[in-house]
Parts: sequence; C-alpha cells; structure tokens
Amino acid sequence: MSPREDDITGWFRQQRDLSPVEIPIGIGDDMAQIALSRDSSVLITTDMLLDGTHFLAHEAGLKRVGYKSMAASLSDYAAMATIPIGAVVAVGLPRGFSEAQMKELHSGILLAADKYRCPLVGGDITSWQDSGRLVVCVSMLSKPGGKPPVRRSGARVGDVVCVTGSLGGSGLRKHLDFAPRVAEALEMSRIADLHAMMDISDGLSTDLNRICHQSRVGALIEASAIPISEDAKGLADPLGAALNEGEDFELLFTLSPDQWDRLRSDWRDPLPLTAVGRITDTGRMEIRTRDGSVADLKPGGYEHLGS
Amino acid sequence: MSPREDDITGWFRQQRDLSPVEIPIGIGDDMAQIALSRDSSVLITTDMLLDGTHFLAHEAGLKRVGYKSMAASLSDYAAMATIPIGAVVAVGLPRGFSEAQMKELHSGILLAADKYRCPLVGGDITSWQDSGRLVVCVSMLSKPGGKPPVRRSGARVGDVVCVTGSLGGSGLRKHLDFAPRVAEALEMSRIADLHAMMDISDGLSTDLNRICHQSRVGALIEASAIPISEDAKGLADPLGAALNEGEDFELLFTLSPDQWDRLRSDWRDPLPLTAVGRITDTGRMEIRTRDGSVADLKPGGYEHLGS
Repeated sequence: MSPREDDITGWFRQQRDLSPVEIPIGIGDDMAQIALSRDSSVLITTDMLLDGTHFLAHEAGLKRVGYKSMAASLSDYAAMATIPIGAVVAVGLPRGFSEAQMKELHSGILLAADKYRCPLVGGDITSWQDSGRLVVCVSMLSKPGGKPPVRRSGARVGDVVCVTGSLGGSGLRKHLDFAPRVAEALEMSRIADLHAMMDISDGLSTDLNRICHQSRVGALIEASAIPISEDAKGLADPLGAALNEGEDFELLFTLSPDQWDRLRSDWRDPLPLTAVGRITDTGRMEIRTRDGSVADLKPGGYEHLGS
Repeated sequence: MSPREDDITGWFRQQRDLSPVEIPIGIGDDMAQIALSRDSSVLITTDMLLDGTHFLAHEAGLKRVGYKSMAASLSDYAAMATIPIGAVVAVGLPRGFSEAQMKELHSGILLAADKYRCPLVGGDITSWQDSGRLVVCVSMLSKPGGKPPVRRSGARVGDVVCVTGSLGGSGLRKHLDFAPRVAEALEMSRIADLHAMMDISDGLSTDLNRICHQSRVGALIEASAIPISEDAKGLADPLGAALNEGEDFELLFTLSPDQWDRLRSDWRDPLPLTAVGRITDTGRMEIRTRDGSVADLKPGGYEHLGS
C-alpha cells in the first residue's frame, strides 16, 4: 500500500522546524511562504506529473502535457490569491525522446508561461537509463497580492462555501485544457475578504474535507446548488462526478455572508461564482439531498447518501 | 538520441523573455535569480534524480538517496556563493513503496536540511500507476550573500583556475555522501572577489568547458597540479578520473592572481584550495602534461592527450 499524501504531509508537519528564516506558511497548504525581509516574502510550490498517472503522453500529445504541468501549479497560485513570478521545470525523459519531442513539450510549457505571465527561468533535463516514462516536475514562485495569501485553515462557522465554474467530468477533456483561475482569484480577493481557499484537484468532497479539517469546522452542502458541468451531465451519475471526481481545477472558497453579498454584487468577470453550502460547527461534512434529507458527505465518495 | 542538456538550455535561452519581473540571472547558470524589489531577490534551482540513473535505490539505501537529492541542490547554491533559505521536494513513488520507506527517504532529506540549515518547507507525493521507479525532484531557494551571486560567465584572461578538495573516483563512495561546499563558498566569496564559479557535477573537463564557453575564454590546466583523490589513485587512470568523472561536487572557480594570493593567505578552513591552471585568450582548453607538452583538453575525455 502506498502511503496516503495527507498522512505523510501531516507527519512532515510534526517534524521540528529547522528554519534559519521565518516561514509564515509551511507544509500542508497549496504553497509554502518564506519571509525574506520584513516586507518581502515569496511563496513556492512543486508538482510532479507522471506519464500514465497524471497524463497519457501518447494520447494527450506533448504540448498539452507541457501546458497541464504548468497550469496545475498556476492553479496552486490561484488557490492562495498570489501573483506568479517565475517557474523552473525539471524533466525526466524516456530513452529515445527526440529533440523535436522536447520542443513540443516546451512549447506547451511556454504557452502557459506566456498566457499567465509566469516566466520559465530555469530547469533540469535528465534521462532514464532504462525503460522509465516521462516525468515533469514544475516548481513555481509567487508573491502575495495586495492581501495576505488565503489559506486552507481560515474557514469560520457561518461562512458561505462557494465554488468557481462548474464541476465534474473533467477527465473527458478539461483536465488537459483547463484555465487556472489566477486573475479571477486575485480579483475575488481584491473585492472581498476570503477566509479559506484551495483549488479542487482531488474532487469537491475530498478538498472541502481538507478545508474543514484544517479549519476545525464542519460543512453542509446543498446538492441542488452544485454547478454540474455539461461534460458531467452526460455521465451516469452527474452529482457523484461533480462531488468526487478530481482535476476540476476550479476554486473552492469560504467567506462571510456579508462579504459574499459584496463579491456577488461587484463581480464583473464571466466566470460563475456559486454558493453551494455553509460552514457549520458540527465538525463533519454533510449534504442535503434534493428530497431535503441530510446525509454524511464522505471525502471521495458519498456511498451513505440516501441509503 | 536524447537531446544534450547544453544544446537544449542554449535553445531555451534564445526564447523570448516573458517576464513581468526582473530576472538578473536566467537559464544557463547553476541557479536563476529573480528580483522581488530593488533590494531583495531570490535564487531558485531544480534537480531531478532518477533511480537507475543518479542512484540505485536498492544498493544505496533510501536515506542516502534522500541526502544526495538535497546535497546536489545545495551544491548549486554553493556554486554561486548564496545562502540557502528553503527547499521543496517532489517524489514519484514506485508501486508498493511503504510508509516506512517514505520515512527513510525523508530522514535523509532532513539530515541534509538540518546540516546545511535549509528547511524543507513543502512538497508533493505521487505514485506511478505501473512499473515506474523512484523519482526525487528537489527545488531550492537561496538569497545572495554579502556579494552578488558568482556566475559561470565571469572568468577573465589571466585568472587563476582553482578547485576545492580533491577530484575523481567519486563513483566509489563520495557521490552519495559528499559535503556540499555551502559555507566554504560563502567564506571564499567574503575573503576574495571570485570571477566565475560552478560545482563540478559532470567532471572538471566538462564543467571547465562550460565556464570557458560562457566566459568566451580558454584555459590551460597543469596536469601535475590537479589534486587527485585517494579513491581515484586506486583506479587504472587516476588523472583521467580526476579530469573526466562526474559527481565530485567540489567547486571550480577563477579569480585574479592578486585575489588568489589574498584567499590563500586568509584561508583558515581545512578544505584544501588548489590552483590548477590559468584562464587564457586561446578560446580553447589545453592541458600541460607532466612531460611539459601541451595538448588539447576535450570536455568529458582527453583522448588526444599524448597521442
């Protein structure tokens, strides 16, 4: 059995702090923040993508692989409402990977770098000696926007729980072509005080559970309010897809009802923002089904729903 | 054929600059530097290590793999005489990798983090779906010491070419246990003005060629002056090992003869510093053999030597 990432990061977090510098935000958030001086800090994140796990290079094409690698990290930026400033990309190449293939991969990386104004400043290129598959590891830096970075741990009882865009069915198409919500997050943070935020990479139920866990709160989600994507509507279980599928790369955030009213009224961007529930003091996640009954909502599954 | 890293990084460097921030040092040096404000900047590097290419996990043990992954990046810091401030580590795990194995790997990472005061601030843990081998990608941040970061491109005609420690035979032992010269580089840079520096990761001849190429100069190396390691002395071709083997992780640097005198006289550290040659205006690398004849020195080989 492979260790679960949440367990391991929890264990990491318990290790002693070895820092000669101040680290306002450490392991467990979307990015880590390092203070450089009293009024200057930088945030860093790293994401590793493996052929066969996060993408299928021969199906997706290398340009889309390059784009997705950058976009997934840019989504981490968005999750804290910070401003991208630069990226380094390390690649592990299969044997026989040609220079033309390298340039195709690179063109996808540059497409995202260009679109989201996050320059590629360095990297590392290495090759498997034997039958290894393509690995791409993107590490990115950002700096705080006008406000402090939004963390996972700031949700408060009574907050409105919201999402951007629509959810589910990402595996059909969107997981390779998604638009990280970098500018939208900065604009949301400018208009309103966001209490907690993260990007939905492992599914709404799993990622909301992380916010609840780190904020020590519960949540009640309204099934009827969840914005289900057109792609998910064609699936056998659209609600299940919207709740539990990964790689939506939309934003999940909480804020006070007053601030939610303000955000709604001042929001000019075409990206939909939808309230899907409330933060509660129950300490657990629940969902109100369309018939009005309330069931437990489990991360990654809703097997108890309606049973 | 796999693309050669120097070709690819050269091609990257030609791409247009997409930057919304100032990047004093970009692709091609040991680290990239990003300016955050007028008096604050940060340097970043990334290194990917693959099982079977950079280490053999089952022979080396996971703790040493973790240590080496961090130490290789710390050596990049040393190469520019900058101060480590934090690292993020992404790992791609083989199927069946246990939590105990993860903790062993992590203990090696922490050992290096602790010893060199570079805190682990975040990471990413992912797993291969099929038969992939262990991948470790370390990305690190540093900040400038008292002086600007030392680059590869600053060597000047007449400079003394120096190395730290002794070279060759690293594959026997040292490549897993080496001590990155972080503190020594900062002390060297404090005492003297270093013109160019890098760490010897691909062998003296290959890495000196990089300095010569980026500084648009030549070099003449004295075979008799090269400090050959005890491990290399037991090999069939000790000089060849010292010139051409990789992963010494010692420092290669150039400075004016005056500054070299100053450095020698003020140096109190036990780490030996040795002058091995001069920077020349010939535009090519040469080596004077023990019999006094001069031959071309090729990166990665010295096949023309004495023939």
